[in-house]
Amino acid sequence: MSERLPVAVDAMGGDDAPTSVVAGARIAVEEMGVPVLLVGQPDAIAACDPGDIPILPASEVIGMDAEPAASVRRMKDSSIVRAAEAVRDGKASAVLSAGNTGAAMAASLLRLGRIRGVNRPAIAVPFPVLGSTPSTLLDCGANADCQPEWLVQFAQLGTVYARSRFGIDKPRVGIMTIGEEAGKGNSLVKETCTLLEAGGWDDVCGATYVGNLEGRDLMAGTADVIVCDGFTGNIILKSLEGGMAIALDAIKEKLEAMPGANESLAELYHELDPNTRGSAMLLGSKQVSMISHGSSTPFAIANAIRTAGEMVDTGIVGELRAMIERNAATA
Amino acid sequence: MSERLPVAVDAMGGDDAPTSVVAGARIAVEEMGVPVLLVGQPDAIAACDPGDIPILPASEVIGMDAEPAASVRRMKDSSIVRAAEAVRDGKASAVLSAGNTGAAMAASLLRLGRIRGVNRPAIAVPFPVLGSTPSTLLDCGANADCQPEWLVQFAQLGTVYARSRFGIDKPRVGIMTIGEEAGKGNSLVKETCTLLEAGGWDDVCGATYVGNLEGRDLMAGTADVIVCDGFTGNIILKSLEGGMAIALDAIKEKLEAMPGANESLAELYHELDPNTRGSAMLLGSKQVSMISHGSSTPFAIANAIRTAGEMVDTGIVGELRAMIERNAATA
Repeated sequence: MSERLPVAVDAMGGDDAPTSVVAGARIAVEEMGVPVLLVGQPDAIAACDPGDIPILPASEVIGMDAEPAASVRRMKDSSIVRAAEAVRDGKASAVLSAGNTGAAMAASLLRLGRIRGVNRPAIAVPFPVLGSTPSTLLDCGANADCQPEWLVQFAQLGTVYARSRFGIDKPRVGIMTIGEEAGKGNSLVKETCTLLEAGGWDDVCGATYVGNLEGRDLMAGTADVIVCDGFTGNIILKSLEGGMAIALDAIKEKLEAMPGANESLAELYHELDPNTRGSAMLLGSKQVSMISHGSSTPFAIANAIRTAGEMVDTGIVGELRAMIERNAATA
Repeated sequence: MSERLPVAVDAMGGDDAPTSVVAGARIAVEEMGVPVLLVGQPDAIAACDPGDIPILPASEVIGMDAEPAASVRRMKDSSIVRAAEAVRDGKASAVLSAGNTGAAMAASLLRLGRIRGVNRPAIAVPFPVLGSTPSTLLDCGANADCQPEWLVQFAQLGTVYARSRFGIDKPRVGIMTIGEEAGKGNSLVKETCTLLEAGGWDDVCGATYVGNLEGRDLMAGTADVIVCDGFTGNIILKSLEGGMAIALDAIKEKLEAMPGANESLAELYHELDPNTRGSAMLLGSKQVSMISHGSSTPFAIANAIRTAGEMVDTGIVGELRAMIERNAATA
């Protein structure tokens, strides 16, 4: 365990960073046994009581609302850029940020690079399914405008991810659209379906293609991997996060006066909470890059760090690369 | 009251039609004082105890999964087609169906026609906002692929709707996208934003333009009218309906054993339940056309019938027409 490379954690990224991030890192190190390298402003980190966790200094912070690509190019001593470089330089095994999503993505792609043959990297987000393994939706925001071929590759990348992360031997893959019958959807989906229906899923990546899915299938466990363009995926993600949070908060408030109710619901909140599963993963990056929600609790950060470590251990990047190469060779 | 034209209700449309539809029609007539004309197979309706509600016979039923446009063209004696014709022929004031959404839309547009100057009709759906008036999302599925000009007009149609239906004097209008800053989104949104930002909203339709919105704004009351293409809108609608139903059902189950909890939550369920607000409205149709969820309860059907009557009383179609004409004249 102690020989494992640490996860490089962007200590300055997140709504109340570095407080929650440092607290989460301590849980990961002390309770989960995952080594961490905190990256950011040493004074700010020290003020949050990081215990014995090593610190890699970085003087700049890319704000949550900063323009991602330009900031990453300009702020070479920012925490997210330095964290990605630690992975590139072999000082860490994976990078995790709960900061500016676009900046985390840009830093990962610019510093870690893209797996050869990947058209476009995609953000994969697991959605909770009560009593079952999560369904992974991708792309959740890396690519606002997509081409059919990219969506087909997202399905392949997502399949490898579902297998590596959730142990699903033969993931069921479908496409998010607005009708169950074949041929329903916008023009992007219609063109993509023609490609998806060409078959060969078992050979390409060991998936089963289940066809069209609708919004209601997302948390119902109908499929293990669901593909869509990054515009649609990001809006689904934020709509559900927002709606669920509003509903759960209101229920909590109603039941506050009722003894026993909160305990009774705690387990359910835990299962429905997107924070529980840890973070999104940038598929297509040459090394493991995890992106967490800005409002992540210390517990969510710790889970994300653990997941980052697990993704390194499963060798997912190697499996993604092998899948892409195999298909390029047969294409 | 008794001189009001009835609402033509497609008795055969809905997951367990005609049972729930007839039960809902009785609530509307007997408890809400809204006159109804039930349209469908007389024997099937009679078996559901329709009381004194008049019946307009129609021998055919368009199934929930039937191909909409072809079915409407072919099945001329279907309940949804006859219900729309009753409105066209002045025997009813509005049409309501909880059946095949595409067929309800096609029947309305083919039989009732489109308001002159409307590019494309759009489905407007009110989303609950706790403690406030709902936010209306459109288009929720009438147009899978959209052009920027259509979205601009959706914003105008939605503004008139929010004013007529919810009494919001100066609706706040925004566009659904994937970032708060101007210029964030897919290519359709970017092109649309350029048009939306040209201003003149107060003159055009009495709205305030509030710019970019994200998924999390949907149930948070950030805007009164939110525009998007019909692919995105339908996926948002179904994702939230599905996710909320799963969460609320799970909570109900957890709390079943807890005395008092269900009563305490009943009000909240009621507020969050999309069934409460009644149905979606097809904006751009020449007469009032409401489209309800296939799984609508009798209470939801009754609410939708009442809403249909209210929409007739507010003269919304005349206001939509006047707004479109005024803007065509100044354009």
